[in-house]
Amino acid sequence: MPVNLPFPDAASLASVAGVRLAAACAGIKGPDLKDLMVIALSRDSTVAGVFTRNRFSAAPVTVAKAHLSQTSSRALVVNSGCANAGTGEQGVARAMQVCEALGELLECDASAVLPFSTGVIMEDLPSERIIAALPTCVEGLCESNWLDAAEAIMTTDTVPKAASRVLEIGEHKVTVTGIAKGSGMIRPDMATMLAFVATDASVAADSLQAMIEHASQRSFNCITVDGDTSTNDSLMLIASGSSSCPEISAANGDDYAALRDAVTDVCAELAQMVVRDGEGATKFITVRVESGRDERECRMVAYAIAHSPLVKTAFYASDPNLGRILAAIGYAGIDDLDVTALEVYLGDVLVAAGGGRAPGYREENAQAVMDQKEITLRVRLNRGRAAMTVWTCDLSHEYVSINSEYRS
Amino acid sequence: MPVNLPFPDAASLASVAGVRLAAACAGIKGPDLKDLMVIALSRDSTVAGVFTRNRFSAAPVTVAKAHLSQTSSRALVVNSGCANAGTGEQGVARAMQVCEALGELLECDASAVLPFSTGVIMEDLPSERIIAALPTCVEGLCESNWLDAAEAIMTTDTVPKAASRVLEIGEHKVTVTGIAKGSGMIRPDMATMLAFVATDASVAADSLQAMIEHASQRSFNCITVDGDTSTNDSLMLIASGSSSCPEISAANGDDYAALRDAVTDVCAELAQMVVRDGEGATKFITVRVESGRDERECRMVAYAIAHSPLVKTAFYASDPNLGRILAAIGYAGIDDLDVTALEVYLGDVLVAAGGGRAPGYREENAQAVMDQKEITLRVRLNRGRAAMTVWTCDLSHEYVSINSEYRS
Repeated sequence: MPVNLPFPDAASLASVAGVRLAAACAGIKGPDLKDLMVIALSRDSTVAGVFTRNRFSAAPVTVAKAHLSQTSSRALVVNSGCANAGTGEQGVARAMQVCEALGELLECDASAVLPFSTGVIMEDLPSERIIAALPTCVEGLCESNWLDAAEAIMTTDTVPKAASRVLEIGEHKVTVTGIAKGSGMIRPDMATMLAFVATDASVAADSLQAMIEHASQRSFNCITVDGDTSTNDSLMLIASGSSSCPEISAANGDDYAALRDAVTDVCAELAQMVVRDGEGATKFITVRVESGRDERECRMVAYAIAHSPLVKTAFYASDPNLGRILAAIGYAGIDDLDVTALEVYLGDVLVAAGGGRAPGYREENAQAVMDQKEITLRVRLNRGRAAMTVWTCDLSHEYVSINSEYRS
Repeated sequence: MPVNLPFPDAASLASVAGVRLAAACAGIKGPDLKDLMVIALSRDSTVAGVFTRNRFSAAPVTVAKAHLSQTSSRALVVNSGCANAGTGEQGVARAMQVCEALGELLECDASAVLPFSTGVIMEDLPSERIIAALPTCVEGLCESNWLDAAEAIMTTDTVPKAASRVLEIGEHKVTVTGIAKGSGMIRPDMATMLAFVATDASVAADSLQAMIEHASQRSFNCITVDGDTSTNDSLMLIASGSSSCPEISAANGDDYAALRDAVTDVCAELAQMVVRDGEGATKFITVRVESGRDERECRMVAYAIAHSPLVKTAFYASDPNLGRILAAIGYAGIDDLDVTALEVYLGDVLVAAGGGRAPGYREENAQAVMDQKEITLRVRLNRGRAAMTVWTCDLSHEYVSINSEYRS
């Protein structure tokens, strides 16, 4: 059961002019399940992306990175059910076959197509089935298909994930809409499993890349479910240039900042959706580390807490087991940390200070916070001005069931 | 159920001349449970130790380190049921009260007593109950009580852990016997939860410290259950000097090496026992990384695999899910790793090569290995001559049950 994550309302998702989508059933995940998705872009589009840093990056990641650097992208093709990772040269060849087939249908070069895959690692991509389903998919392309597209990229996700923002830049309405998938193998390092965000604004290529890097550092790179960085993580940002708004580049300050913040908002909402639908999640936990010397040490402490199986099972049990949290802070890797100076808050309750329990600590107050489904844990290091937030979920029986029964 | 770890046979544990032990029930863990243990040392003893690097190290760790540096140690006092960690200055004061009480009974200074605790973090040490039980404990001291002592230090352990070696140095018989506890919060960094190893050889203090560091690097520092480094980890090595064997120092090569190897053997056996009895363990897994550039990168890859919840649940399910192993190798942090050059063996079966499935890979061969209770996973990086072995266990439903029901 995802944590406070309702099925999205299609009407709440703003279409993005110049960006058409469609989903189809290619028979990869099973009969009658949507597992193929195409996004076709207007000629004016610019595309930027960030990809997994896993050394075993998937064949489609290799191809998409190469294609992105070669020419203007005109389409994205995404399948679920097979990650096409750990498949060697043959995996690259199969990803290329799919690009060529879609290029023919859309009358563009294969290098203008960016391929993405998600699902089981080390199985051959069933490219024939994908190619056979592409014509239906292309026929169905339309600007209002975001929810269908979100469904087609799901694997162990229980809910499709999509988010929108509409903003005004000058007198021009601009929309930003994005979708993401991901539930397990979530500890993005540059991006998450798969996320696609589009705006109808016109954005110069360099500025678009800067924007996606800014957004990913504040969204997908701040979440973890199980600490496993996927082989297929990709986050793509599309600017279709179809709105009436003049081109935005990093140079024109306020407009760039407004769009960047909307894109970051959409990414953060999508990233949090991934955690809310984390494998087996029963709680959504915000770990905020404040007053550190730099962002790096705040991140070390936040991730030590967010990755600790002992902390995660304590959240699952609604057990205010403060000792496990202190232990994780203690082994996070800050050699000169003064543990008597730091403070730990569970919700608004000061639970630890002076190297032990806070004076006046009462377990019932901590228990009341622990009983909630959304919990903020705040660590004040009291040695500087940097801060960092990480979002995670608990570790439940259901997590073990999902991952001992599903071949992901 | 621990993995291939029978209840120890008291007769197989060699006594160590000059080292007397006793256990008692102090009422910390519950009525009629052994939870207090004393080790009394002959006057000729030398003691060396390695301790947790967790910044939230426990009060007894602080006191033991200080006492060890002040004077010759005459006794160790260990309680289970309460870790006396995250307890601030008051925790140090309570640990000192226990040392003073035992010092009086044994007619030595309080600083000649080393205190150790294990159990729930952030609860006050019930020093009155410990002090009340000390006289009975001291009356029971004898050289054959190793098994009783091992039982008294258990927390979530299901089996007491003890190991012995008897060796000849010159014409002198020398014994090495040790005990350990630990099952969860196991990712030692310098040592494990608690382990006490003694020999009747006479060893110079500096040589004894070098010996324990050598042994811990090849035993307790090579295991992980859940990646959580405890606040109380301590490994102590005692040389009672009661055997007829002349003093050994690092200078007299062969004798030192023989004893060092026996101590390392006992430590490795104890460390593996901790993993075999890891919380919820159903499999014992040896992760060996070979032909790396240096030990550090081999360790990074081995721990990435051993800590991955996805790999651990796949082992639990006996699922030869190779993709999860490749993904963990890929995110281990070696930036210039050539994934097409490395090979992965499951048991004797070559499963991955050339960046994907090995030619001729047949799933039934990998499945046959996965069905076993003891599994060796071998990664050949093929870029150097270093190697490193890590021992771990799987992640089961039982792990989640234990840690959501037990306040550790």
